[in-house]
Amino acid sequence: MVAKGILKELEGEVASINQALVDNLQSHVPLISEVGRHILLSGGKRIRPLLFLLSARMCGCQAPELPAFSTIFEYLHAATLLHDDVVDAADVRRGRSTANTIWGNQAVILVGDFLLSKALSLAVTTNQLRVLKVLAQTTTLMAEGEILQLLHAGNLQLTEEGYFEVTNRKTAILMSAACQIGAILGDSPPPLEEALAQFGLNLGITFQVVDDILDFTGNEQEMGKPIGNDLKEGRITLPVIHALAQAEPRDRERLVEMTRNLMPEMVPELRQLLDKYGSLDHARSQARAFTSKAQANLEAFPPAPEKEYFRAFTAELLDRTH
Amino acid sequence: MVAKGILKELEGEVASINQALVDNLQSHVPLISEVGRHILLSGGKRIRPLLFLLSARMCGCQAPELPAFSTIFEYLHAATLLHDDVVDAADVRRGRSTANTIWGNQAVILVGDFLLSKALSLAVTTNQLRVLKVLAQTTTLMAEGEILQLLHAGNLQLTEEGYFEVTNRKTAILMSAACQIGAILGDSPPPLEEALAQFGLNLGITFQVVDDILDFTGNEQEMGKPIGNDLKEGRITLPVIHALAQAEPRDRERLVEMTRNLMPEMVPELRQLLDKYGSLDHARSQARAFTSKAQANLEAFPPAPEKEYFRAFTAELLDRTH
Repeated sequence: MVAKGILKELEGEVASINQALVDNLQSHVPLISEVGRHILLSGGKRIRPLLFLLSARMCGCQAPELPAFSTIFEYLHAATLLHDDVVDAADVRRGRSTANTIWGNQAVILVGDFLLSKALSLAVTTNQLRVLKVLAQTTTLMAEGEILQLLHAGNLQLTEEGYFEVTNRKTAILMSAACQIGAILGDSPPPLEEALAQFGLNLGITFQVVDDILDFTGNEQEMGKPIGNDLKEGRITLPVIHALAQAEPRDRERLVEMTRNLMPEMVPELRQLLDKYGSLDHARSQARAFTSKAQANLEAFPPAPEKEYFRAFTAELLDRTH
Repeated sequence: MVAKGILKELEGEVASINQALVDNLQSHVPLISEVGRHILLSGGKRIRPLLFLLSARMCGCQAPELPAFSTIFEYLHAATLLHDDVVDAADVRRGRSTANTIWGNQAVILVGDFLLSKALSLAVTTNQLRVLKVLAQTTTLMAEGEILQLLHAGNLQLTEEGYFEVTNRKTAILMSAACQIGAILGDSPPPLEEALAQFGLNLGITFQVVDDILDFTGNEQEMGKPIGNDLKEGRITLPVIHALAQAEPRDRERLVEMTRNLMPEMVPELRQLLDKYGSLDHARSQARAFTSKAQANLEAFPPAPEKEYFRAFTAELLDRTH
């Protein structure tokens, strides 16, 4: 999902992560490996494992197990995607049929549980209780975030504050944990660990806000889903919250109608309204503010190739197109 | 679910467990507490927390946090019940509407995820990495067990070996973990820890086999579900496996018909066939063999009140009626 620039330089790391993902997915129940491979090997960009890997290296950890440990974050992410797709009754992800349409909700719920447990089993192999502590807090907050999102579905009263609460918990907290745990394995002093945790959080918020902008501005082919898909599924995101708050009564009424039942033919009008009230620009400037915070979080670290990757990564997030 | 005898003597322990269950269920998302209370406070007998509490005490641990730690096992159990009920599309549990019929599958999947994460967060507060190691392995095996059970649904080729594999993973492994983790907190030497892990496993298998017998012999009122409910939901259990293997061709054909579509009016005939081939007695004698193993696992321990409770507990399991 990140622009190709920096990922191209990290091809070696991505390959080692992909190898570890396959290696660790062994189960004597073939269905688990099958569903696992479907969700894990369908074109994710490995952002969470990369955040972990680079954080650990930037903090001086050179353990040969880093690629194996990095899969913790991709397994956790995949587990939430599987449960998300069941919750949303989604049928397409990244342009492919979702696991639930192929194997049914039942199997997919249980494979999600398996991947979560597998992630925790791998985390135990770090031999660091604090890693488990951060992860358990993270998954608790993520579950709360998913429930909040469900409760907010179609809620036109949702505020920006409420939106950022969900975004923090649903998306940003796992990226934060990936960075923080990298710092823990590098045995970093507390202020640096905290700086990396904050970096991951700010990066994660940027990531989600950009995602929510792309729901209206992206290319359907590249995104693998139709424009306005999130809104259609009831997710009231930052641009819509802004537009609803700014719009004149007549436009607001029209927006409300569109949030209730978005038809493909309404998309151009929706875009027009979001442009009229500067709602996409508002969201972009919010995203930019979080990237600035993320860049500032990096200042505490001495020069290192990983720091430069993070800088480029953060800057490119704003330009990503899918 | 255990006969009332021994539980009556443990009323103080159960009260402290119940209090801790409510205390730890705080979430700033009210729906989570609501669903959590529904599944947790609907009449479970707290067998898993009790196994943990008594194991820890028998191994010399007197930590004041024992009731709080004991909730780990009830939260994990509740998480699997929630996901189970979604997977089975169940509408009644313990005579009450299931959470999924009240709040919908979506919320229930996510609250299950929350309870699992909460259990792990509590486990971190024991400050013992090995506790997390046992738990992560346990939840991985449980997820595999649930998936195996799903794959075996309606499978008339299921062998006793396959049945015990599912039983081990789905039910017994969590009781084993509860006992083993009690031993870990009591800082027991490895042979005693292993003896308690085995005790929990054998007890858990007994528990499930008796449960599967009660599906055919129990009292609908006491059980809170109709007779033959498991079979109706596609679970081929020990008595049915035995009867299918022993029956003459004509009886076997009739049994196959009943496993495909069990109507309430067929239940007396089903009972007759299970009796004709001694299938319930066969299951009872298997259960008895596992209680003997469980009793033998206790021999390594010096006399203690907890040991006597365990002895009584194990013996009473065979006589439970719901």
